[in-house]
Amino acid sequence: MQISKSFIEQYNDDNLKAHQRKLDFSTSEIENSEAIIKQLVDFQIAIPSWALGTGGTRFGRFPGGGEPRSLEEKIEDVGLLHALNQASGAISLHIPWDIPTDANAIRNLAAQHGLKFDAVNSNTFQDQADQALSYKFGSLQNVNKAIRKQAVDHNIEVIKHGIELGSDSLTVWLSDGSCFPGQLNFRKAFQNTLEGLQEIYAALPSNWKMFVEYKCAEPNFYSTTVGDWGQSLLYASKLGEKAYTLVDLGHHLPNANIEQIVSLLLMEGKLGGFHFNDSKYGDDDLTAGALKPYQLFLIFNELVEGMNARNMNHAKDLGWMIDASHNVKDPLEDLLQSVEAIMMAYAQALSVDRQALEIAQNENDTVRCQEILQNAFRTDVRALVAEASLRAGGALNPIGLFRNLKVRENLIKERGFKTIATGL
Amino acid sequence: MQISKSFIEQYNDDNLKAHQRKLDFSTSEIENSEAIIKQLVDFQIAIPSWALGTGGTRFGRFPGGGEPRSLEEKIEDVGLLHALNQASGAISLHIPWDIPTDANAIRNLAAQHGLKFDAVNSNTFQDQADQALSYKFGSLQNVNKAIRKQAVDHNIEVIKHGIELGSDSLTVWLSDGSCFPGQLNFRKAFQNTLEGLQEIYAALPSNWKMFVEYKCAEPNFYSTTVGDWGQSLLYASKLGEKAYTLVDLGHHLPNANIEQIVSLLLMEGKLGGFHFNDSKYGDDDLTAGALKPYQLFLIFNELVEGMNARNMNHAKDLGWMIDASHNVKDPLEDLLQSVEAIMMAYAQALSVDRQALEIAQNENDTVRCQEILQNAFRTDVRALVAEASLRAGGALNPIGLFRNLKVRENLIKERGFKTIATGL
Amino acid sequence: MQISKSFIEQYNDDNLKAHQRKLDFSTSEIENSEAIIKQLVDFQIAIPSWALGTGGTRFGRFPGGGEPRSLEEKIEDVGLLHALNQASGAISLHIPWDIPTDANAIRNLAAQHGLKFDAVNSNTFQDQADQALSYKFGSLQNVNKAIRKQAVDHNIEVIKHGIELGSDSLTVWLSDGSCFPGQLNFRKAFQNTLEGLQEIYAALPSNWKMFVEYKCAEPNFYSTTVGDWGQSLLYASKLGEKAYTLVDLGHHLPNANIEQIVSLLLMEGKLGGFHFNDSKYGDDDLTAGALKPYQLFLIFNELVEGMNARNMNHAKDLGWMIDASHNVKDPLEDLLQSVEAIMMAYAQALSVDRQALEIAQNENDTVRCQEILQNAFRTDVRALVAEASLRAGGALNPIGLFRNLKVRENLIKERGFKTIATGL
Amino acid sequence: MQISKSFIEQYNDDNLKAHQRKLDFSTSEIENSEAIIKQLVDFQIAIPSWALGTGGTRFGRFPGGGEPRSLEEKIEDVGLLHALNQASGAISLHIPWDIPTDANAIRNLAAQHGLKFDAVNSNTFQDQADQALSYKFGSLQNVNKAIRKQAVDHNIEVIKHGIELGSDSLTVWLSDGSCFPGQLNFRKAFQNTLEGLQEIYAALPSNWKMFVEYKCAEPNFYSTTVGDWGQSLLYASKLGEKAYTLVDLGHHLPNANIEQIVSLLLMEGKLGGFHFNDSKYGDDDLTAGALKPYQLFLIFNELVEGMNARNMNHAKDLGWMIDASHNVKDPLEDLLQSVEAIMMAYAQALSVDRQALEIAQNENDTVRCQEILQNAFRTDVRALVAEASLRAGGALNPIGLFRNLKVRENLIKERGFKTIATGL
Repeated sequence: MQISKSFIEQYNDDNLKAHQRKLDFSTSEIENSEAIIKQLVDFQIAIPSWALGTGGTRFGRFPGGGEPRSLEEKIEDVGLLHALNQASGAISLHIPWDIPTDANAIRNLAAQHGLKFDAVNSNTFQDQADQALSYKFGSLQNVNKAIRKQAVDHNIEVIKHGIELGSDSLTVWLSDGSCFPGQLNFRKAFQNTLEGLQEIYAALPSNWKMFVEYKCAEPNFYSTTVGDWGQSLLYASKLGEKAYTLVDLGHHLPNANIEQIVSLLLMEGKLGGFHFNDSKYGDDDLTAGALKPYQLFLIFNELVEGMNARNMNHAKDLGWMIDASHNVKDPLEDLLQSVEAIMMAYAQALSVDRQALEIAQNENDTVRCQEILQNAFRTDVRALVAEASLRAGGALNPIGLFRNLKVRENLIKERGFKTIATGL
Repeated sequence: MQISKSFIEQYNDDNLKAHQRKLDFSTSEIENSEAIIKQLVDFQIAIPSWALGTGGTRFGRFPGGGEPRSLEEKIEDVGLLHALNQASGAISLHIPWDIPTDANAIRNLAAQHGLKFDAVNSNTFQDQADQALSYKFGSLQNVNKAIRKQAVDHNIEVIKHGIELGSDSLTVWLSDGSCFPGQLNFRKAFQNTLEGLQEIYAALPSNWKMFVEYKCAEPNFYSTTVGDWGQSLLYASKLGEKAYTLVDLGHHLPNANIEQIVSLLLMEGKLGGFHFNDSKYGDDDLTAGALKPYQLFLIFNELVEGMNARNMNHAKDLGWMIDASHNVKDPLEDLLQSVEAIMMAYAQALSVDRQALEIAQNENDTVRCQEILQNAFRTDVRALVAEASLRAGGALNPIGLFRNLKVRENLIKERGFKTIATGL
Repeated sequence: MQISKSFIEQYNDDNLKAHQRKLDFSTSEIENSEAIIKQLVDFQIAIPSWALGTGGTRFGRFPGGGEPRSLEEKIEDVGLLHALNQASGAISLHIPWDIPTDANAIRNLAAQHGLKFDAVNSNTFQDQADQALSYKFGSLQNVNKAIRKQAVDHNIEVIKHGIELGSDSLTVWLSDGSCFPGQLNFRKAFQNTLEGLQEIYAALPSNWKMFVEYKCAEPNFYSTTVGDWGQSLLYASKLGEKAYTLVDLGHHLPNANIEQIVSLLLMEGKLGGFHFNDSKYGDDDLTAGALKPYQLFLIFNELVEGMNARNMNHAKDLGWMIDASHNVKDPLEDLLQSVEAIMMAYAQALSVDRQALEIAQNENDTVRCQEILQNAFRTDVRALVAEASLRAGGALNPIGLFRNLKVRENLIKERGFKTIATGL
Repeated sequence: MQISKSFIEQYNDDNLKAHQRKLDFSTSEIENSEAIIKQLVDFQIAIPSWALGTGGTRFGRFPGGGEPRSLEEKIEDVGLLHALNQASGAISLHIPWDIPTDANAIRNLAAQHGLKFDAVNSNTFQDQADQALSYKFGSLQNVNKAIRKQAVDHNIEVIKHGIELGSDSLTVWLSDGSCFPGQLNFRKAFQNTLEGLQEIYAALPSNWKMFVEYKCAEPNFYSTTVGDWGQSLLYASKLGEKAYTLVDLGHHLPNANIEQIVSLLLMEGKLGGFHFNDSKYGDDDLTAGALKPYQLFLIFNELVEGMNARNMNHAKDLGWMIDASHNVKDPLEDLLQSVEAIMMAYAQALSVDRQALEIAQNENDTVRCQEILQNAFRTDVRALVAEASLRAGGALNPIGLFRNLKVRENLIKERGFKTIATGL
């Protein structure tokens, strides 16, 4: 299924008057609204190929129908999202789930949908059917050199697939760790992992980045070998200037101050990118902004401040990705909600009066500092996000149009009800 | 210091045009805006007497000057807040910090400021200079019957003070518990506490309520004897129909779902009231809505839904109180920010399309459920809150006027810089 | 595979001298050691049928070989454990994973191994192949009455299977809840669940118990409908005297004081039983006592104190079960470790000088209270546990003999390497 | 009060027979018991001067009498502890609470008690009476350069006091941070703090170390400027080779894996030392080993492994300190309990069969790994700790003798009941 331009235009025309009224009010309220809209137009968030189907739980899956059955259909799905919001112009692949049989054909298909290939992801946390050695006791950390080599080789292969598709970064997320005290020598696990990462790093093209993702815990675990930003930064620093830390919002211990971590990683020049999602208890991979929207705003507040301080290009110098899982929602609707929430947080952060904030900070006027941030957050910026979508050729209300056009029903017709997407 | 009506009117006149423009937009956006404004006018949040001065930390206090030196000045401070926002028409006293020498005079003074007396609070977590026995090892839980009796007697005395002032509820918060495994027999501690509460309950006038506040932890503690809503509900159920659970937002273990607790307590007819504040790590007593505004909204969402389901009077049938502490802000400015944030959350909760939400819930349309709540939360309701203040005779922007009138500077002039409020 | 008595005797003979030396020292150290040994002999811990194979993670399973392929083989496995430690004389089944085709034959088989049938468990958290309606949006809480009825009917069927096997209790664990704010009306979800539990309760034989298990969270969840002990107690109280709360050690928010919960549930006469395991971050289902052995001891300390206060039969009046999952260990070895750790905690709790503790508590001598508990915990009671096993006909060191006899290797020979147990 | 040798000898003689019996059994059980005893004799734990009196809570203090009123009496108190256990041969001072008027006299007094001066601690988290500028908004992080300079100067003064007393390390713990989002620019706060630390570092004598202590939170805080081991390591790395991270067990987010942090800091050569205590909910500063003794053992397990891997001197190359607070215990008894618990954890860690553990780790034999650690932990090593005390001239049971000699009663007689120690 593809969404024709004319459907979008028709939908926008029908809703334009109401939109314009809101936009007028917003632009009268927000000083730099025009600049914000332009920055929103440029801002793109990569969609992970593994989030296009219903997520698996330890109890099973409850798929909703019409899920993509192939890499081609995954690209088609992201194309649908991007057609609707013009803000999802990239896809992040997971190898081996998404190995292209014909890389050129896949590149062309993506290009037809206006999509780029974002970071490629390796998988050494599952055993594949044809795999010689098991990752039961970890991959890069493994006490067995042959298993470590297998994991290194896999990552190098992922890089090759990425090169063919025009990606320029590799995300390494390991579920290495231990379940019980004593199982692991922490130091040797770190050193084995570092050695493996160094071998992978050596295979990176010169213009590539490596993102070292951290995570505090996995179910059933007692330790993880890339457990927090401190460990990730240690790896990234030892690896070299192409290595960066990747922050997934759900990978922290309770009460962690993620926005401070973001600020410090930017200070160190070692923030690589983001996996957006939200959570209540652990790594819940829920829709971005669904539970803690103010935290999302505070993170963007640090991002804007820190990227500006380093003269970074907001759209290009960091990797922006969603990493979510959907058990009770339509995956595409969920992703549209995530992108919208991220765009709003970004717009609100852009609207913060930074000069006034700096003055208030220098005067220790905490009340005023809070007011400045809250004012930005309490201001309704949805019209700005809609306007950015409109200008870029997307829909004023992507989810509205998604439902209006009965996209899911069409996908079910095309693909069937009992499809299950590859991946998690 | 008192704020004359004319100052407020002048300030409002100066800002009326801008306000009207925002209000017009809001009323065009929010269907039941007129009804919401009326409910906001009726809604009053009690100010705790102990939050009018700078809070104490374990390292000391850093007072900011002009703090109230007496009960009279505390009432004056709350009067200032109420004059500014017309939403703080009650004060909650703490005995023995706030024992009135002449109850009638105090009642009259409060009436002059348009203030009522909310729940009175007992204190059995500190030893007073003239106290016969120490609460070092707890009060109502104590193994020593004489100490338990002293604590019961104190609570009965607090009730008497409350009767004189026209209060109609008692909040019992205990810091009873233990620091080390083995120190306490949990069952006997519960039973002693229950027995003491029963004696206090017996002294309650027929129209009074008793609020049993729970708290998961205190610094240096290993257990608390009224530790969670389950324990509080157990006490309240055993006590009788005048006993209720009081929810303080900062008194929960990490990640607790407070809105669900609120819903279930309402279902049981046992929710008594609230202590509003916000927190990041523990019982931080920070400004309401300063860190987790969406959580505050979700709590009000349950409150509105649950109170409506029981045909409760929003303004009268629950106790609404702030419980905060201020180390780096002007206490009065902080309280104005808290009240504003609470009002906004309440207004947003009132604007939720409940019929649509019920339909979406019945259809398991989770995407739509989220949209309905987020739509209410993302809508800027500040103009409604301002309009309610305006109609009631308060300022369009209470903090703005507070600063404009240099209230703190005036209080420092009147009271001096080195004052320290009694209390925590 | 079965372990002949003679192997066990031979093994014990070989190790008897060393054991006797340790036992002599222990009995000289621990005053009531003989009574403790007798209580240990009587104490039996039920093995869950779903813990006999390698656990599933969201990434897959890494099975170790020789896993039971049928209910018969599961009984055989528990029989092996019980032969080794004489402390695992019960099995807890999960329906529909363990539906017996011939209940009598299964009963006889179990009896041959000296096993009883502990609580039966229903499953409304997964969709079975032949199931009419999906539990995607919950079972007993569901907005759809037909789905609720399906879940009730399933539970009633589970009771029937339990009756046939001689079980006398039903454990109801629901993964009902919600993933996003707004998805659920908490009150209606509670009331639907209560209604369903009441219908199931009505089908209980007069001598049966119903255990209502609570859990604070599931991955991807925002709320759970039986979330904490307070909610479980509310259900159990409304249901009636046959309904009890079941405590699973891994189902609590961070830092929860579980031993206090245990004490209060015993006080209320509403503690039904336990699911033992251990955890670091969440519901990790790791080997009991593997991470927080002192917590396990403190829980048993409350159990012994509270059961004695109510004149309860330690072995019979509560349900003792393990609920664990094994990703990196041999499941049978893991279970032997769990049982041993539980036995030790029980033995240490039995050795606490309760009279001295009560005196110290009454004198607020916290130092002494701590010393009394620590003394019990620091004392090595392994010889007592070994002696209990010896007297009952088990091995002095069950894991030692398990390895000695190459049990796993034999099971792999009998059953093959690529078996996967039914269940989670 | 001083405890004469003869009292100790008499007490030991009275208990020698029972001790010898236990020791004989222990030495027969633990292979390297003689080596362990020798290492225990060498191991000394510094006592913080601020832990000798009853701790302050935010509600007040409940002192127990006989608290030290001067630096001299604090040294006397530590001398008493050291006389009893011969394992507390150092004191850690806090400036300005403990400024000596005559450094030589204090040095001599300490020497008479066999005490050295461990790390000196600065205080920039409280305002002193004579202080020009306030730390209300932080010290080294402050936006005001003059305040930063005041904090730097204070630290340099602390170093001077330390030099006079023969100390060779400075512990810098800051309560710098913020209470509200927006209050602080995280990056600038970090950079200001780093700059200040660099100035202090420049004033360190060549043989000194600087310990940078981290802490995840303070009550009422939203961020801390040295918040976790990652931040501390960043500071320490930028400062230079004399700067190290200091780990306080209570300063972590819920569920943090502290033993892994310890291992990695040792790997990096950046672990400086420890503040021992225990906690349930936050920074509770409870007696070491009172709640999570297995965690304490696991930490020592990493310490022994890591120090051995770097050929470090256990007794000298790291700073071992207690940091606790006592609200319901006699401070001296509490400290004796802490030292004993630390000694036990160290002894158990020394008894781990490291060769077997390494083999099991290399074979991924997780069951065996757990058994090896648990075997060490479950073995009763109290006789080894007692033997070390005996050989060094201390008491077999320090707390027993403390009570036997009525030390507290004597101190109350000498110093009075209403004394309050300076400090927290």
